[in-house]
Amino acid sequence: MPESANSPARSAHRDGGGPTSDAETGISRRRLIGTAGATGLVLGAGGATAGYAVGSGDGDGAAPLSSVGAGRVMFHGKHQPGITTPLQARGHLLAFDLAAGAGRKEAAALLRRWSATAQRLMAGEPVRTAGGHDTGIALDAGPSSLTVTFGFGHSFFGRTGLGKQRPAALDPLPAFSSDHLDKARSDGDLWIQIGADDALVAFHALRALQQDAGETARLRWQMNGFNRTPGATERPMTTRNLMGQIDGTNNPKPSDQDFEQRLFVPDPPAAGVPGWMAGGSYVVMRRIRMLLDDWEKLPPSAQEEVIGRRKSDGAPLTGGSETTEMQLEKTGPDGKLVVPLNAHARITRPDQNGGAALLRRPFSFHDGFDPDGIPDAGLLFVCWQADPLRGFVPVQRKLDRGDALSRFIRHEASGLFAVPAAPAAGAYVGQPLLEG
Amino acid sequence: MPESANSPARSAHRDGGGPTSDAETGISRRRLIGTAGATGLVLGAGGATAGYAVGSGDGDGAAPLSSVGAGRVMFHGKHQPGITTPLQARGHLLAFDLAAGAGRKEAAALLRRWSATAQRLMAGEPVRTAGGHDTGIALDAGPSSLTVTFGFGHSFFGRTGLGKQRPAALDPLPAFSSDHLDKARSDGDLWIQIGADDALVAFHALRALQQDAGETARLRWQMNGFNRTPGATERPMTTRNLMGQIDGTNNPKPSDQDFEQRLFVPDPPAAGVPGWMAGGSYVVMRRIRMLLDDWEKLPPSAQEEVIGRRKSDGAPLTGGSETTEMQLEKTGPDGKLVVPLNAHARITRPDQNGGAALLRRPFSFHDGFDPDGIPDAGLLFVCWQADPLRGFVPVQRKLDRGDALSRFIRHEASGLFAVPAAPAAGAYVGQPLLEG
Repeated sequence: MPESANSPARSAHRDGGGPTSDAETGISRRRLIGTAGATGLVLGAGGATAGYAVGSGDGDGAAPLSSVGAGRVMFHGKHQPGITTPLQARGHLLAFDLAAGAGRKEAAALLRRWSATAQRLMAGEPVRTAGGHDTGIALDAGPSSLTVTFGFGHSFFGRTGLGKQRPAALDPLPAFSSDHLDKARSDGDLWIQIGADDALVAFHALRALQQDAGETARLRWQMNGFNRTPGATERPMTTRNLMGQIDGTNNPKPSDQDFEQRLFVPDPPAAGVPGWMAGGSYVVMRRIRMLLDDWEKLPPSAQEEVIGRRKSDGAPLTGGSETTEMQLEKTGPDGKLVVPLNAHARITRPDQNGGAALLRRPFSFHDGFDPDGIPDAGLLFVCWQADPLRGFVPVQRKLDRGDALSRFIRHEASGLFAVPAAPAAGAYVGQPLLEG
Repeated sequence: MPESANSPARSAHRDGGGPTSDAETGISRRRLIGTAGATGLVLGAGGATAGYAVGSGDGDGAAPLSSVGAGRVMFHGKHQPGITTPLQARGHLLAFDLAAGAGRKEAAALLRRWSATAQRLMAGEPVRTAGGHDTGIALDAGPSSLTVTFGFGHSFFGRTGLGKQRPAALDPLPAFSSDHLDKARSDGDLWIQIGADDALVAFHALRALQQDAGETARLRWQMNGFNRTPGATERPMTTRNLMGQIDGTNNPKPSDQDFEQRLFVPDPPAAGVPGWMAGGSYVVMRRIRMLLDDWEKLPPSAQEEVIGRRKSDGAPLTGGSETTEMQLEKTGPDGKLVVPLNAHARITRPDQNGGAALLRRPFSFHDGFDPDGIPDAGLLFVCWQADPLRGFVPVQRKLDRGDALSRFIRHEASGLFAVPAAPAAGAYVGQPLLEG
């Protein structure tokens, strides 16, 4: 390791990260870098990235973690982690159904176990699973910005006798003409999103949480996803998807005045919204298969007309850079709109959807290939909003009526889950619902 | 980005990397870090890792890549890349069969296309695929230590009329009692290994190479794998697998006197070995499913007896650290051998196998889950040797007779491929075979 980088790397680390925090309990898997401790990612600062700094020897012979491993996200806070946390390199989405005979009491015990496990996992500490011991898969690694996020699906409430606590926002999503939904990979009583910058850390969390489910809940479906590795690209804010397109440009920014209001249920909630959702959010998950053979046959200029943005840098076709406003009325020498009426980026603009806004936080997926050799690949579209009826639903309705992108994609699975606020210290996720 | 880290990070980078090299042709996707250019990973230095350094602004306002993105492996050299290259975070294994009607001439043209594409991909340059344009999936990213490695399977030689050039070492592997092989995911005419530290860079390469295959070859099978993300752990040499065990401790080291001899066919080859394999190697690939539910039910102490090494640090149960020699005859207070006779690490020791040695260079895999909820996960075991009959075969024969690990794993797919030396500049992989 480069001893010469010692001090500057540390200060760089501090510059790049947010507030730091010590491990909460027990001994962290690994000593983190010097005084910087951990890259304390600021919850609520969705657009921020950690400053990825090189670790350097500190004199005792062991090489410290670089901040990829040292990155740590807090489990407790205002909102659950994994919503405004910067995109991670690896992700798992899982849904569980309660087992026959398991009701509110068993669900409460499960959420208590899961919360305790998630807290330890996110601190980089070993966990005790149903087998009584940690699997060891994450040994040596730092927390690697692991987040674990829990949600409740429509069917959860009936099964637990909590029907009166079910938010209207969990009503099933309308059918869309582009839907080719596989029920077995959609919905579910309970939802977990795992994200981390290291694939083994993420898998370790998946196994621990799965074992915690024990006899209480059965895995319904599970999906794997990925984004760029930290440091592989210069782009700090947005990722690319497997169509080669920059993804997430129009996301709400933490600096937006209404950022909190668009993403999270207010505290106290509006009339008619159950109190346990104060500070919570709703997630819509869609497995969007990309028809890559068809897409890749289009010349890049035609692909750009489908999207309305340049492939190279995500700038609108009307010019500027990624963050430049699109000139909706601008026409070209041929008198036609530069950004066609059915361009994906035009249709999804908030001002074209009555102000509807959602935070896209996707993972790409690639699960082998079809018999014709085409990859079974695309986007695990994950989006967050305070109310799906003012977020995903109006946007998807509009896309459904005339998105140029629709002939290159296929929605294959869908889920809508209520994601309550983070628990207070000593409490567990959903406690106000399950013990309210 | 941390301006203050500028100079030290650069020097750290130089310290950590090997010789640097400019892009060979065209314009690289991204300007790499200052004068360091690229982390020129030294071919042949299997154990070395790149020094992961933070990039720093160079005054023109654009943030440079950290060395995760800047890491570059050379396509030309003595041996093909991806053999002694340090483990990468993401991997794809693919096999193709020649299409009906495609023979030696078409195969030669394909290998020429593939070689040109691989060279550009590994330099971080855009490629021209069958569709005539780059997919854009790797835009913004550096080469990210991408490697592309090509091999020829037993069936290739008959189909191309090159039967006389088929090395005896490609004779089918013997059957093992633990085999549960799926033919559809085994063997194949042509084999490609893709590795990179960024999942999108790896997928970009996969699509480009797949499109290059055009009508000449059809995808037979394809597998995805992963290892730790650079910087997630302090361990530079070995990785962990999904059993939580350190993997690869007994690998030959570049500093071993016989490293080259164990891994690569000599130049000129021994009598009876075709000349086109000079400087080449043989790869054995096994999809090894881990029966994780059974494994995880074992207490860690019992797991350690199965392996013969400590989970925490990979040290032999007879003490020391990961690199300490195992004391084969040492007994405990109960008079029993400390490392049981059927311990995996005892059986696989080179001195227990007539000196057989192979270089393990695996990826973990995780492809969803079985109906019973158990992950379809394990190890894409990839090993390299100068001669499989003095590498994989004797070791696996011995394991087959009494490895304590065997009841926790299942070999589900298998492949054996001849991997020729790297081509000279201007030549393509396998040219001495196809035009010899």
